Amino acid sequence: MTANRAWIFEHPPVRDDFDSALKFHDWPVPKAADGQVLVRNLYLSLDPANRRWMAGPTYMPQIPTGAPMWGFVVGEIIESKAAGFAPGEIVGGVGTWSDYSAVSTQGLDKIPDMGGLPLHTAMGLFRGPGGTAYVGVVDIGQLKAGQTFVVSGAAGSVGSLAGQIAKILGATVVGIAGSAEKCAWLTGELGFDHAIDYQREDVEARLRELCPKGVDVYFENVGGAVGNAVAANMAKFGRVAVCGLTAQYNDERAPIGLDLMPLLLNGCSMQCFILYDYLDRLPEATAKLAEWYAEGRIKYHADIVEGLESALEAFKQLFRPGASHRGKLMVRVDPAAN
Amino acid sequence: MTANRAWIFEHPPVRDDFDSALKFHDWPVPKAADGQVLVRNLYLSLDPANRRWMAGPTYMPQIPTGAPMWGFVVGEIIESKAAGFAPGEIVGGVGTWSDYSAVSTQGLDKIPDMGGLPLHTAMGLFRGPGGTAYVGVVDIGQLKAGQTFVVSGAAGSVGSLAGQIAKILGATVVGIAGSAEKCAWLTGELGFDHAIDYQREDVEARLRELCPKGVDVYFENVGGAVGNAVAANMAKFGRVAVCGLTAQYNDERAPIGLDLMPLLLNGCSMQCFILYDYLDRLPEATAKLAEWYAEGRIKYHADIVEGLESALEAFKQLFRPGASHRGKLMVRVDPAAN
Repeated sequence: MTANRAWIFEHPPVRDDFDSALKFHDWPVPKAADGQVLVRNLYLSLDPANRRWMAGPTYMPQIPTGAPMWGFVVGEIIESKAAGFAPGEIVGGVGTWSDYSAVSTQGLDKIPDMGGLPLHTAMGLFRGPGGTAYVGVVDIGQLKAGQTFVVSGAAGSVGSLAGQIAKILGATVVGIAGSAEKCAWLTGELGFDHAIDYQREDVEARLRELCPKGVDVYFENVGGAVGNAVAANMAKFGRVAVCGLTAQYNDERAPIGLDLMPLLLNGCSMQCFILYDYLDRLPEATAKLAEWYAEGRIKYHADIVEGLESALEAFKQLFRPGASHRGKLMVRVDPAAN
Repeated sequence: MTANRAWIFEHPPVRDDFDSALKFHDWPVPKAADGQVLVRNLYLSLDPANRRWMAGPTYMPQIPTGAPMWGFVVGEIIESKAAGFAPGEIVGGVGTWSDYSAVSTQGLDKIPDMGGLPLHTAMGLFRGPGGTAYVGVVDIGQLKAGQTFVVSGAAGSVGSLAGQIAKILGATVVGIAGSAEKCAWLTGELGFDHAIDYQREDVEARLRELCPKGVDVYFENVGGAVGNAVAANMAKFGRVAVCGLTAQYNDERAPIGLDLMPLLLNGCSMQCFILYDYLDRLPEATAKLAEWYAEGRIKYHADIVEGLESALEAFKQLFRPGASHRGKLMVRVDPAAN
């Protein structure tokens, strides 16, 4: 067994000071305890949610300090001490920012043969991002053909898929993103009807122009001022699907909350959701996404950073307005991973 | 026909400066236009929502300045220019703060014989407050027996009924109100399990003690800091029924919005609602409330102020923390009204 390297979680970051919170070290190869498997990581996912895991308990305990940082990984089982899992199998679950992860089998899934698709689609198109986008649009947003759909964080992994799914379902789709390049990508390659650059445009005023009858479904990924600008433009009985609040994740001060007044006047509803609570919907989501992707109706962009040592700089992009990444951000841990 | 007096809406108030916004004058008796009825007001309802009507369009246009202030009234038809309405009938709808109101028949309802109950129950127990409380608890909150229910503005007309309905449905009920006297009324006469005085207690900490498993349904009447304190204590998949945001109605500054982070972590949902959108539920609500009231399971308190000239001072109580009013605040316009 070869050497292991890991990003160690030193302490919860203050605001966006990730440089002191995460340190890259040589680190012993972890041992799989009973009920665990040892995984050689092929891909490491970088997600805004990781920031929340640092700050306190979520749907998982807070990440312990002095040990490798947690993240979603796809990798190969090297050693198994868990029934039903065997060396050589490819799995996905919550591992660590390292070459090797010891992973408990709770939430660990075997990755099926991808039928010619690159392995990273299991991380960036299906499962997490695709499942979240699908559930958010279909189950939470309950989007119907002819409605107006707005998504923030639209150039991100979830947002870019959510907007395309909404388009397939027959909605008029507006994406909100942080640069002209991202906006051009949304309306160009991805086929969004409109895009708003929140760094340069007045989101509230632009939405009033673009959605004169109001927004029927808002897929909320960011919160903060952008969230309030959309809330001010909701249609009667509009629905807000709250998936993330990235604008607040680095803010230790009192957060900018959502002003409920415009929602109250319009009888709107809001539903916060986490994919973990809707795992029974993953098979349908995966089947639909695979079908749409094969038909060319869903475009998927993997923003792949090479090498574990690059993880921290890439992660910081998630919280930098106007950063250049788009689509699913991930690290290729094994240079040979396809 | 006798003289008429009216509170004239001079201009939208700045914050809580109602003294300059509303002036009491002799005023011509209004004329019923075609499709309208002239009503002699018996009772005038004072509601936090009236404040919103002053500030801008809501589910109604903004109240015009230089004319009588709008409010819910119960009164007797003196003259009818509307088909289906006849002089002598008792009706309820949106009238004006005056002795006489010219009222269009949109939203105007005939008040049935109250079967021995005082007429003001048509304003304070059934229709608006009771309907709102019932729909909020049953339809929006979807409260189930054994759940934990929290209501803010608990000593108000809607809150006091909502808590009692929740209790009848088998919930553990916590009310949040603005004085020790109100809290004693909630846990004493009204049978709430617990009450929190938000003026003197730490609402978030008290809820943590009183609801260790979290709040399943929150009936939101106030917003602001109290709303956030409850949001921080929601249970997994908890539901928030947003009925009002009185803490924000006088605030011209950026309002304190609701922090969605704790709701996101718990997969909570929120539904804003206005009774106008659920009028088809009023018959069931009225029947249930009448049954429960007759059985002594619902206590109803009418806080009746005598005389139209007292309307302004009474209205100001709605926004004064620790004010002494409890239950349904209204003005007896006709001294002979029962």
